[in-house]
Amino acid sequence: MSQKKYRDESGLFIAEGTKLVLDLARSFHVHYLLATADWAEESGKTLKAEIRVISKEDLNKISNQKTPQGVLAVFEKPDYILSESDISTRLSLALDDVQDPGNLGTIIRIADWFGIRDIICSEHCADAFGTKTVQATMGALARVRVHYVNLENFLQSISKKIPVYGTFMNGNDIYSETLSQQGIVLMGNEGNGISEKMEKLVTKRLLIPNFPKGEPTSESLNVSVATALVCAEFRRRG
Amino acid sequence: MSQKKYRDESGLFIAEGTKLVLDLARSFHVHYLLATADWAEESGKTLKAEIRVISKEDLNKISNQKTPQGVLAVFEKPDYILSESDISTRLSLALDDVQDPGNLGTIIRIADWFGIRDIICSEHCADAFGTKTVQATMGALARVRVHYVNLENFLQSISKKIPVYGTFMNGNDIYSETLSQQGIVLMGNEGNGISEKMEKLVTKRLLIPNFPKGEPTSESLNVSVATALVCAEFRRRG
Repeated sequence: MSQKKYRDESGLFIAEGTKLVLDLARSFHVHYLLATADWAEESGKTLKAEIRVISKEDLNKISNQKTPQGVLAVFEKPDYILSESDISTRLSLALDDVQDPGNLGTIIRIADWFGIRDIICSEHCADAFGTKTVQATMGALARVRVHYVNLENFLQSISKKIPVYGTFMNGNDIYSETLSQQGIVLMGNEGNGISEKMEKLVTKRLLIPNFPKGEPTSESLNVSVATALVCAEFRRRG
Repeated sequence: MSQKKYRDESGLFIAEGTKLVLDLARSFHVHYLLATADWAEESGKTLKAEIRVISKEDLNKISNQKTPQGVLAVFEKPDYILSESDISTRLSLALDDVQDPGNLGTIIRIADWFGIRDIICSEHCADAFGTKTVQATMGALARVRVHYVNLENFLQSISKKIPVYGTFMNGNDIYSETLSQQGIVLMGNEGNGISEKMEKLVTKRLLIPNFPKGEPTSESLNVSVATALVCAEFRRRG
């Protein structure tokens, strides 16, 4: 189950920890839930799912976490439908090969904070239902839908309806640009940024300015930090 | 050397990777530098330090990185002087027990991006010269000074001169508050936020608004993401 192949085939994913499991149980169907007797007593009462009680020792053996919290749940993966007409009425994120599960988890959490309901991922992005990503979302995965598509085809089509924003070193200062609350914010890969293929489909090039402008600094911001800065500016105007 | 005790005693720290080592060599004194013959030939020419050539196999054995890049450098730690009168003329960051080296590294990178030269850490913060932090800074450590102090005493004293900003769920919307370019932005611990002791020394309480306001979302943003959003808003006005 900690391998993507099996997760895809089974249609299942794993989450651990009290808060995370309870958050996800509100949105996803529990397939299987293992917990210690203590956990079942203290935290399991509000849960509608059947709890299979297991000893603390056995749970620790199968846990992926450093400090297991007494519960491990297997959820059924959701089947989301990506509706272009829905997407064209709001702000969404698109990710071009974001590779690191921690970054993807943080981006899902940022999307949740800023009321972004859909993240459209290229097929080579990290797996939103992988264990590391699920844990890094801190429950936000319950409220944000992550889709995997052929991103080039998707952007080609959606860019006829709403703007596609991307950040580049030679873009226009985001703080002085018009920003639409109906649009796609495209973020790139950790090492290479937005790929050439996708860059062609960006309709509005933005820049996150450093300070003081033009001074030598780190060449780039971490992708999750950049995502947060762009989303914050869209929502500040919203 | 990968243990803090020895780093403190020796006054040394380690960095790996071409870009990082070359960036840091501009600011810090190289104590010892190991590199493969290939690296010395290709990348070492601009370096003034003596290169001790080592085989790729031996370097891989002592490396902390998954994919060693042919160079490992031991630098001398800088001796920074924290001047209250300097600090009172600009914007700085203060960190109350930020524990995760990855977060600290990302925050150092954010500070660099936003032209913040000093980060004042409580004594229990992660070690800025620890291997994980150094690697996560991507070279920004060469341009940002990290100080370790008794944070309570420091804030008590500096808050008489310039505002101390902190973010709280019940703070005032950052986008409608007056923000001074001379001030301290205090960020809290990953799990517990700003401690009670430090909260008393905050002179201006801010809120990073979510969207739509008041909707249920993730309870909090990651500390490095929150740091970026606050710094960006200060600098947008600057």
